[in-house]
Amino acid sequence: MTPDMLLRREDHGAVLRLVMTSPGTLNALSRAMIAALSDAFGDIGRAGSVHAVILAAEGKAFSAGHDLREIQGARTDADQGQRAYETLFAECAAMMQAIRALPQPVIAEVQGIATAAGCQLVASCDMAVAAQGTRFGVNGINIGLFCSTPMVAVSRAILPKAAFEMLATGEFIDAERARMLGLINRAVPAERLQDETMALASTVAAKLPAAMRMGKQAFYQQAGLPLDQAYAAAGRTMCDNIMLPDTDEGLNAFLEKRAPRWPS
Amino acid sequence: MTPDMLLRREDHGAVLRLVMTSPGTLNALSRAMIAALSDAFGDIGRAGSVHAVILAAEGKAFSAGHDLREIQGARTDADQGQRAYETLFAECAAMMQAIRALPQPVIAEVQGIATAAGCQLVASCDMAVAAQGTRFGVNGINIGLFCSTPMVAVSRAILPKAAFEMLATGEFIDAERARMLGLINRAVPAERLQDETMALASTVAAKLPAAMRMGKQAFYQQAGLPLDQAYAAAGRTMCDNIMLPDTDEGLNAFLEKRAPRWPS
Amino acid sequence: MTPDMLLRREDHGAVLRLVMTSPGTLNALSRAMIAALSDAFGDIGRAGSVHAVILAAEGKAFSAGHDLREIQGARTDADQGQRAYETLFAECAAMMQAIRALPQPVIAEVQGIATAAGCQLVASCDMAVAAQGTRFGVNGINIGLFCSTPMVAVSRAILPKAAFEMLATGEFIDAERARMLGLINRAVPAERLQDETMALASTVAAKLPAAMRMGKQAFYQQAGLPLDQAYAAAGRTMCDNIMLPDTDEGLNAFLEKRAPRWPS
Repeated sequence: MTPDMLLRREDHGAVLRLVMTSPGTLNALSRAMIAALSDAFGDIGRAGSVHAVILAAEGKAFSAGHDLREIQGARTDADQGQRAYETLFAECAAMMQAIRALPQPVIAEVQGIATAAGCQLVASCDMAVAAQGTRFGVNGINIGLFCSTPMVAVSRAILPKAAFEMLATGEFIDAERARMLGLINRAVPAERLQDETMALASTVAAKLPAAMRMGKQAFYQQAGLPLDQAYAAAGRTMCDNIMLPDTDEGLNAFLEKRAPRWPS
Repeated sequence: MTPDMLLRREDHGAVLRLVMTSPGTLNALSRAMIAALSDAFGDIGRAGSVHAVILAAEGKAFSAGHDLREIQGARTDADQGQRAYETLFAECAAMMQAIRALPQPVIAEVQGIATAAGCQLVASCDMAVAAQGTRFGVNGINIGLFCSTPMVAVSRAILPKAAFEMLATGEFIDAERARMLGLINRAVPAERLQDETMALASTVAAKLPAAMRMGKQAFYQQAGLPLDQAYAAAGRTMCDNIMLPDTDEGLNAFLEKRAPRWPS
Repeated sequence: MTPDMLLRREDHGAVLRLVMTSPGTLNALSRAMIAALSDAFGDIGRAGSVHAVILAAEGKAFSAGHDLREIQGARTDADQGQRAYETLFAECAAMMQAIRALPQPVIAEVQGIATAAGCQLVASCDMAVAAQGTRFGVNGINIGLFCSTPMVAVSRAILPKAAFEMLATGEFIDAERARMLGLINRAVPAERLQDETMALASTVAAKLPAAMRMGKQAFYQQAGLPLDQAYAAAGRTMCDNIMLPDTDEGLNAFLEKRAPRWPS
C-alpha cells in the first residue's frame, strides 16, 4: 500500500482533517502508517495555511494499535526481530512526539475503539473528542505485551492510579469515563462527532496562528520544569508574543471594542 | 493611585483577609497592583500573628488579569515596550511565586470572573473557594496573546488536556467545572462565599503555625522531585517538625485525649 | 510482638493476600510493623509463584499511621529522639518505596480509616479498592505534625489543590470522593470489599508475570522524565518484553484467535 492509500487529507479552510483510511486493518499503526503520519505531520508543520489539525479515522475503529502480523513477521529475521522492533518503537515514538512539535493544535476525532498505540495516539494529541460508546484501552498485557510506550502518553494525560489500572488490567473504559479521567476533552453523540470536532477545530483555527504556535510550544516546554524555570521560559514566550504586530493590533482592538484586523 | 488604595487589609483574628479594591479596573494586575500585592505578601510573611491569608476582591470580578491599557502604553517606548514587558512578566511571576513562598496558607476567595493572570492568581494560591457562577478563563488567545505565564500555574493545577483546551479555545468554565478539574477546592452559593472561605481559613489558622509553615514549604519543595529525593526532603521536614516542643505537646495531648496547650 | 503476629500471609493461588493483624493498635505502622512489611515485601519479591499482592488489614481500621506512643517513648533518648525519628521515617519511606520496587502489582484493600502514614500506604500501592464509608485523611496537622512524608505519596496520586486541602485542614474524605480524586480505584459496598479486591487481583495475576514486572518497573521509571527520555526508556522495555518467548506465543495466539499457552 502506498502512503497515499493510508491517509486522506481534507482541507476545510484553515482546518486540515487528516483521516486514516485503513479500516480493514482497524487503522493499525503499521510501519507504513507511522511513516505516512510522520510525512503528513512534516508537511503540515510547513503549511502556514493550516491553523488547526483534526486526526480522524475511517471505519469501526479509530486505531487498534500496532500491526501484530507485521510484528510477528520480523521474528524470522536473523536477530529474531530485535532491530526491527527497536526501529518500529523509535519511529512510532518520534511520530507521537511530532504531534507535540507541530505548530498547530491537533485534535483527535475518535470513534469505535482506540487501543494500545491507538490509545497512545489519542493521548498524544493536544485535545480529543470522542463519540459516546468509544472504548479506550491499553490492553497489550492481555497478550503478554505490557503497553510500555503507550504508557508514556497515557500516564501524562491521566492520574497514576487510573493509568496503572488500565495498563495492568487491560480493561476498557468508555468515552464518558475517559473524559472524567482527562484522557479526552469531550464525549459527544456519535452522529455529532464530526461536527463537534470541526467546531472545536474551527474555534482554535480562528485564533492568531503565531500566538498559538508560541503558546503550544511553551505548553510542552515548561511542563515538568521547576516553577521558577517554567516561569522564565514562559515569560520569554509572553514577551515574544506581545511584540508581534498582530498582537499589538489584537490588544488595541480589544480596548477599542472592535474585532482585530488580522491577516486571514 | 497609591498602593494603599489598591488593597485593603482586614484582620480577623489570626486570619488576614487581603482585598483587591480596584473594581473599576476589574482588579487588573497593573504594575502598581502587582507591587502592592508583593509588598503585602512581604509584610504578611513577617507577621507571626497571621496564620492564614484570604485573597479576595471587590466588585464584579476577582481579577481580569493584566492591565491592557498600561501594556499598550509602553509601545511608545524606544524599544517598543520590550524591556517594560520583560519587567512586567518577571514581577508578576515573582509575585505569584511569593504566594507559595509565604509561610501561611493562602486561600483565594473568587467571584465574578477570574481571567488570564487573574486565573493564574487563583491557580497560584494554595487553595481556592469560588461563588457558583464564577467564570474562569485563560483567554488571552482571543486577542492574540496566548496566556503563557498563566499557563505555568494553571497547567500545574489541572490535567494537561483540560489545560490545553482552556488555553487554546479561550473559553470559560464555571465554578463547578473548575472544582471537577482541580482548579479550585469548593464552589459555594454566592451569598455564602465570604463565610465559607473564612471558615476554611479559620480551620487552617487554628493549626500549629510552625508545623503549617514547614509543611507548606515541603509541599512545593518536593513536588516534581524523583520519589527518593522527595522522601529525603520530606523526611528532614518530618524530623524538624516532630522535634518542636509544641508538637511534643500535640502528640501528648492526643494520647491523653485532651486538647493541646499551644501558645495562642 | 514478633513479626509473625503482625502480619498474616494468605495464599490464594497466584494471589498473595497480606493482612495486617494488629487491630488493637488500628494497625499502627510501628517500627515492628514497618519491619514486618519490609521483610514480607522482600520475600514476596523473590516469590515467583506470586503474581499479584493484596495488602489488607484486620479490624475497624486499615491503618491509623505511625505509632504515636512509640514515637513519644523516644523523647527520653539522650538526643530527645532525633536519631530514632530519622531512622523511623527513613525505614518507613524505604518500605513505601519497596511496594513500587516489587515486581508484582500491589492492591490495597481498605476499610474503616486510612490516616496519615496509613493513607500514605494506600497511596503507595499500585491500585486501591475501598469499602464505601472508608475515611481517608492526612490529619497529622491536627496534633501539630504536618504529614510531610505521607504527602510525598498522596501528592503524586491526586491533584495539588485537593492534596493541599487534605494536608492543611486535616479533614477526612470518604471513599467516593477518594475515587473521584484518584486516590483509590474503586469504592465498593463493604460486604463486597474482599471479593472485589480479589477479583481485581485475580485479573492482574492472570497476565504474563514477566510482562507485568517489566511494565510496572517502566511505569515508575518513566514517570517525571522529559518526554523523549521517557520514550527512550519505555522503548527499551517494549523491546525486551516483545523478545520474550511467551510474548511471541501471546501474539501468535491472538492472531490465531486462541488462548495463549503460557506456563501456569
